[in-house]
Formats: sequence, C-alpha cells, structure tokens
Amino acid sequence: MNQSVSPAFYAAIDLGSNSFHMLVVRHISGSVQTMAKIKRKVRLASGLDEHNALSQEAMQRGWDCLSLFAERLQDIPKDNIRIVGTATLRTATNVDIFLKKANQILGYDIKVISGEQEAAMIYQGVAHTSGGIGRRLVVDIGGASTELIIGKGFEAKALTSLKMGCVTWLEKHFQDRQLTQHNFDSAINAAKETIAPILDQYTQIGWDVCVGASGTVQALQEIMLAQGMDEVITLAKLKRLQKQAMLTDQLEELEIEGLTLERALVFPSGLSILIAIFELLEIDSLTLAGGALREGMAYEMVPELRQSDIRARTIDSIQKRYQMDSLYAQQVADTANKLLIQCGGEQWIPEPQGQPLLNTACQLHEVGLTIDFKQAGKHNAYLLEQLDLPGYTRAQKHCLAEITRRYREQFSAMPEQHAVSATSGQRILRLLRLSVLLTHRRDSEKQPEIHIKAEDNALDISVCHQWLSRNPLTAAELEIEASRQSDAGWPLTISER
Amino acid sequence: MNQSVSPAFYAAIDLGSNSFHMLVVRHISGSVQTMAKIKRKVRLASGLDEHNALSQEAMQRGWDCLSLFAERLQDIPKDNIRIVGTATLRTATNVDIFLKKANQILGYDIKVISGEQEAAMIYQGVAHTSGGIGRRLVVDIGGASTELIIGKGFEAKALTSLKMGCVTWLEKHFQDRQLTQHNFDSAINAAKETIAPILDQYTQIGWDVCVGASGTVQALQEIMLAQGMDEVITLAKLKRLQKQAMLTDQLEELEIEGLTLERALVFPSGLSILIAIFELLEIDSLTLAGGALREGMAYEMVPELRQSDIRARTIDSIQKRYQMDSLYAQQVADTANKLLIQCGGEQWIPEPQGQPLLNTACQLHEVGLTIDFKQAGKHNAYLLEQLDLPGYTRAQKHCLAEITRRYREQFSAMPEQHAVSATSGQRILRLLRLSVLLTHRRDSEKQPEIHIKAEDNALDISVCHQWLSRNPLTAAELEIEASRQSDAGWPLTISER
Repeated sequence: MNQSVSPAFYAAIDLGSNSFHMLVVRHISGSVQTMAKIKRKVRLASGLDEHNALSQEAMQRGWDCLSLFAERLQDIPKDNIRIVGTATLRTATNVDIFLKKANQILGYDIKVISGEQEAAMIYQGVAHTSGGIGRRLVVDIGGASTELIIGKGFEAKALTSLKMGCVTWLEKHFQDRQLTQHNFDSAINAAKETIAPILDQYTQIGWDVCVGASGTVQALQEIMLAQGMDEVITLAKLKRLQKQAMLTDQLEELEIEGLTLERALVFPSGLSILIAIFELLEIDSLTLAGGALREGMAYEMVPELRQSDIRARTIDSIQKRYQMDSLYAQQVADTANKLLIQCGGEQWIPEPQGQPLLNTACQLHEVGLTIDFKQAGKHNAYLLEQLDLPGYTRAQKHCLAEITRRYREQFSAMPEQHAVSATSGQRILRLLRLSVLLTHRRDSEKQPEIHIKAEDNALDISVCHQWLSRNPLTAAELEIEASRQSDAGWPLTISER
Repeated sequence: MNQSVSPAFYAAIDLGSNSFHMLVVRHISGSVQTMAKIKRKVRLASGLDEHNALSQEAMQRGWDCLSLFAERLQDIPKDNIRIVGTATLRTATNVDIFLKKANQILGYDIKVISGEQEAAMIYQGVAHTSGGIGRRLVVDIGGASTELIIGKGFEAKALTSLKMGCVTWLEKHFQDRQLTQHNFDSAINAAKETIAPILDQYTQIGWDVCVGASGTVQALQEIMLAQGMDEVITLAKLKRLQKQAMLTDQLEELEIEGLTLERALVFPSGLSILIAIFELLEIDSLTLAGGALREGMAYEMVPELRQSDIRARTIDSIQKRYQMDSLYAQQVADTANKLLIQCGGEQWIPEPQGQPLLNTACQLHEVGLTIDFKQAGKHNAYLLEQLDLPGYTRAQKHCLAEITRRYREQFSAMPEQHAVSATSGQRILRLLRLSVLLTHRRDSEKQPEIHIKAEDNALDISVCHQWLSRNPLTAAELEIEASRQSDAGWPLTISER
C-alpha cells in the first residue's frame, strides 16, 4: 500500500557521569523528531576511587548498558551516529581499559570530549532549540561538571567547563545526607570558589538573557509548574526552595511538591551550585533551554537545520509538516501587524514578546485543521501546548495555545498565562480574531482597506464607504464580532469612512 | 519565509428544504480537509403554500443567504464549485423566479437535481466515507424527502427518493405540537404507506449492513453518546426514545439527554419515519454514515479519491499526512497478523472487526509521534479519537484510540468500548504491544523467528536457541513485557526452543 521509504535515523549517545543516554531521531520538514529514547542510570562517577581509577563493577555496568545500545545501533547508518564520553571518562586514569571493550561492544568509537568541546556542543543544542536575540549565558549543571557558555546565535564567545557537578557536590558537601545550613553553605561557597576564576571574563563579555539546561533546572521547572508559579527562575525562588528543603533534616526524607524521586537525591547539591552561580554572576532570571548536549549532537548531524532564526524555522517546519495554507497564514500575520502598528505598536502591547507572539499565533492559528474543522480551536490548543516548538518557552507555548484556542466563534476571556500581561494577552487575541475575520477570503487583494484606532481598550475600525454593503458576509461577521468583543468588556465599533 | 502555494479549494453548496449549507474543502494527501462551513436556516419548505408556490419572503431569505455565500465563492475556481437544490426547489411551481435571481447573485448556476440524482449523490458521499464490504442500505431523512439506496462499493443498485421528510411530517402529523400516541401512530403509518411501494424491490435485492445519514440519525447518535449507550441504533432503542419523548405532552417542552435545541423540533417526526423504515424493512441495526450529499458532491470533484478500499485509503492518507514510517508500520502489521494466525485467528478474536482493527492499530500506532515522543500514547489517543477517519465508526475510532494509547510502557486494562468485546480489545492490545516490541529495530530481516501459542488468555512465546542472549535489549524488554502482561492478569511466558 505504501511507496514511501523509511527515513534515515540518527543516534546521539552520551556517556554521562550519572546516566548513559541514547537518543534516536529523524529529520522531517525542518524538524528533528524523536523516535526513541533509552536511558540507564550507570552511576559511573560513583565508581571512581581516590586515585580516579574506575572500579571493575562500574565499568561492567557501563558495558552492560552499551550492549543494549549496540543492538539498536546496528540499524542506523554509521555516519548518523555520534557517541561521546564526558567528565568521568575525562577524569578516569584507566579509561583506556573501559574504552577498548566499550568500542568493541558498540562497533563504533566513543569520543571522549574535552570540557570545552562539551560546552561547545551544549551551546549548539541550546542555540538550535531556543529563540530570542542578543547574547545568552548558558548554564548546564551535569553530574561531575558544570558548563558555562556565553554566545550569540550559533557562535559561542566563551566556553568553560568547571569540575563541579551535582553528583560530585553531593558526595563532597552532603556526604552525611543532612540538609543543614552548614552543608548548604559549604556547597555554595565551594561552588563560588570554583566559578571565581572566570568571573571577570564573563562579566566583561556580558549577556542579555540566561538559560539553563540539565536535570537541576528541569527539576526546578517541574517544581514551579506543580506549585503554580511562572517558569522564570529567580534567586528569590531558589532561596525559597532551599528553605523548603531545610525543613527536613534528612536528604532521604526530602519532599517538595513537584520534585520527582528520581531527581531528589542530587537536587540540594544542584540547587547549591545554581545559587552560587546566580549570586556570583548576579543573574536576574533564568529559563529552561529546549535542549543541550544530545540535541547539539543530533542537530550537528543535520546541517540544513542551521538557520539563525529558530522561531522562523519552527513556524516554517510546522506549516510544512501539517500542510498548512502558509500564504494565507502570512496574510493574516501581515494584517495583524498592520493593525498593531495602527493601535500604537509597543505603546499598546508593551512587552517585547508581544509582537512575536502575535505573529506566531497568526502563522499557526490553523494548525488544528490538520485534525478536524469542527473543534479546530481545541485542536490548536492541544497541538501548540504539546508540540516541541524550538524557540518558544513553555509559558509562551501555553499562551499561544490559549490564544489560538479562541481564534474564532465565541469570544471568551484569556485564562491566566505567564508569557505577557493579561491585558496584552487579550489584545493579541483581539487582533488575531480581527485579522482572521478580515482575511477570510484568503486573497490579500480582496481584503478591505481598514483603519483601526485604539484608545486604551476601545477599538474602532473604519472601512471604505459602501464596502460593508458590497461584502455582506464579512459585514455580518464583523458585526457579530463587534458585539462579542464589546459584550466581553472590550469595546469594538465598526464604521464606514 | 514560505515557498508553497495556496492549495485549490472546492465548494459544495446544497440548498435544502430546511437549511442552506456551504462546505469548503481542500484535498491533501488523499484526504478531504474541511476549511470552512457556513450554514443558514432558511426554512424554504415552510414557504410553500397549498399550491406549492414559494412565498416572496421565503425566496428573499434564500437570496439573502446566497449573497453571503457569493462573497466566499468568488475566490474558488469555477470548476471546483457545485451547487444543488433539492426537494423544495424540485416541488416549487415558481422555482424559475427563485433561480433566475439566485443564479445572478451567485454568478454560478444552481442545478436542481431529481430525487434519483440526490439519492445517487448521497450514496457517493456514504461510499467515500464509510468502510465495510458487502451490500449496504443507506437511509437519509431530509427536510422534505427521504432517500433509500442499496449499493455496493461505489455502485448503487437501487435509488429511491420518497416525498416525506422531518419538516413535512412535522407539519402533517405533529401540527398541534402534541407528543401523543395518536400523532406518532399517524406519522409512522403514513411513513409506512409511503415506503410500501418499494418494499418488495428492496427486500429482493437485500443488504448486509445499514447506515444512516442526515440530522435525525446524527441526533440519535448524540443522544446515545450522552446517555452512555453504544452507537448501534436498533428498533428497541428507537421505541425507548419514543416513550421518553411521550413523557412530555408538548413538543416545545421535549427534553431528552443529549438532544440539542436545534434538533429538537424535527426530532419526533424524524424518529417516526425511522421507526417506520425499521419496522417495514425489518432492519436489525443501523450506524451513522461519515458523510452524505455534500460530501458526495465534494468527493466527486476530486476523482483520485475514488478508491474501493476506503480504510486502506484512510490509513495511507494519515501515514502520508503525518510523515509516518509506513514501511515500519507495515512490518508491525505483518508481525501482528502472523501472531494472530498462530493464536488461532478467528477462534481467538472472533469478531469480524477484530483483525481489521488490529491491522489499523498497527498501521497508526505511531501517529502520536508527530506531536511528541514523550507522551506519544496520549497523542495517539487524542488524534485517533478526533481525526476524521473515513471507513471507521465512532466506536471503532474510540477503540483504536484506547488501544494505541497503550502501545508501549505500562500495561493497563482497556476501558469500556463498543467496537469489540472487552476480551478481544485486550487481545488486540497484547498483539500490538508484542509486535511493536519484536520489530523495534525496524528491519524485518533482523526480527526474531518467533512462535506463539495461545491457550485462552495464556500466551507463550518461543524464540530460537540463543537468540535472547544475542539480543539483550529485546530480551530485556520482552522480559519486562511478560511481567507487565502477567501482572495485569494476562499470562505471558517467554522461552527458547
């Protein structure tokens, strides 16, 4: 029945200090699609003795895991495989013994990468999955190393790998498994000493935004989500979580809403490192990156994905993958942008994220049609909430979901969201709905020349004389829309010039 | 940013006795995707006087509606437009006056089709959207006419349009708006008299399944869904609903769980006609068709969609639209089919729908990956529940959703579904999971030669000697799967030959 050929798969394997991970992806329409994930907690770092030699048991755990990966690897083209070892394999004095057998098992060579190489790869993973312009500081807290990178676009300007990680810090500063002020202080201070040598360099280069990768930041994200907070990590929140953690004495008893068992053990040590980084580098806020080391490895194998505007790539990919009417989407976006300018642009929607979110909502507001016409708004919301959208944070995805859920039919107030203010969210929605309505004929030449005026929340639209009577369907729908928005407390009037 | 061209749109307009409908679709990857629906309750039939002349007011309501449609029609290629008028326009003595102005407004000619032509078009709409083999009887109860068709595949063998409909029967038999036994009897008996002349011919030709289109059957479907019944309409259920309706005297006060206000007025008259059809033609059961007149018009414009196996077309289209790995899907389906045969085929899963559902679940079990890997099972369920899947009934879609929700990871019991028995549902799920697991390398040459034996619910799988130790990942996963299924009360053992 089918003529298509199975697409090529890519595999990225990283042999970390705590876990070994295998990621299998394929490339479709400008997106990287995950096809399989295999993870084993090998705890390699805990097998290092005082002379940095890996124990036989730790090596065996590693080899056992690799023989599982090997089975899956046989079916992936050789050029599409990358396998790297990080901090613990960098450190182990007897790494050759481990590697010899490991390479045999895999049938491929493991590349033990330097701290700088690791940092560079992490940066690529972040650059390929996170949007925004300006310089970004990337923080990745691993099991035995922490990477700090400053970069812009796809270019890294400073790359550092520090010898501290949530596993090694656990063993050094929380060895008694007590959540005391003393242990936290010791962990935080030691982290600060480790960071101190690069402080001047990093402060001098500077950055505009800060993003975090790795399990610690992901755990924080999950906690904040579970506790109903927004997604922005600040020092105040970190301190609050430290206090929450110190309510229990024993690490084993640690219970924080949203913290999973799997992440709990290394949470206090990771938190300490992050607090040190925040305090020393005077970071205001940090958000979770969409990817890191493995994503960097995977994207690196597909060079055509290297495009500087990640969000444009994401929009383009989604439109292609779901066979959307992209010419029409652009028409809606152009219309919305014209309306926004007439309303006063940044005076009317002040957040820098406002215009990009309006544009994205316009570009993707019909994605739900791929599922069904009848409840397209609901399908929009489901897809935009659940799809991997490189360049958009979780809060932005949620905001887009709630806006596009309401792109037509009944007008209902936006629920709480953290991407922009409630007023801006409502205004983006109003402009989207008007733009959809004004472009419903899907032909920019047949669109009315409209003028819009905003006075605070009151909008007035004027169209050319007689245009309404010559276009009864649009006129009828504009009239209904005016009542809907006005009834919801957002006045909208329509008039002819 | 985008290079793609807007796809061609198609419009199907039907000027019915109760409402005028406009359907705008486009054709993508073997599917018809709805882009817009516009509907106005014009109530043309109620404008016919005793001499079958249309009143000026009714014509004006029609013209007003057409001028709305006309605005939208301007942007659709002329060859992609079909406009038909049905029963009321067939009947109206002064139809020429209506048509002259209507054609002017639209810029296209309305074709008033005969009852036979309407029946033929309805049959095409059903054939394009409903699966199954054998002869089917199609019942479509409109506002002023009822079509009865027998056909097989795309070929109609008997076409009849009867002059009775839910609007005309309302005016004739429920004119006093009383839900009395007398009114129902009168409506049912009159319907039987209307059907009687074709009874012999239809009984002689015969049919294997019966499907219904139109609002009455859709209303029944919604009621049964709301009341937690399965989707199969039987005479017993119709009689029960008649009794429920008769609990109120006044039609205006009619309240049945799941019945919408919009459908309530013509529900008792439609129900009466359907009861008459069931009793006279001795119909066992009827299910809702996926489409009727408008779908027939729309599909007719896209000849490449004419494929005799509707389900194969649907699977193919979904796999293409979501860029699925269709070679792999076929491998999973082939594996599952082999397992089913070894388990005893129809002895083990007795329903005729069992094997097709297993095949479809295999073919589509990765559709959720189009959204995200992490919760792929949840996305499978969302998509298969919500997508328009021509050839599958709502109950079958629900069953597929619940099976593919569980295709990997934790094994949990299937919830209630109405497509197959609970035991068969669970068995389809078990075979799907095993097939996915055994094919995880996505290469049929690397798949183990396995034997499976079923004794009631106990399954035993045997593989070649040493195969397990040479394939540690598959072996580990088979072992986990054996515990999961066994723990859930469905014993599964693995052994080597």
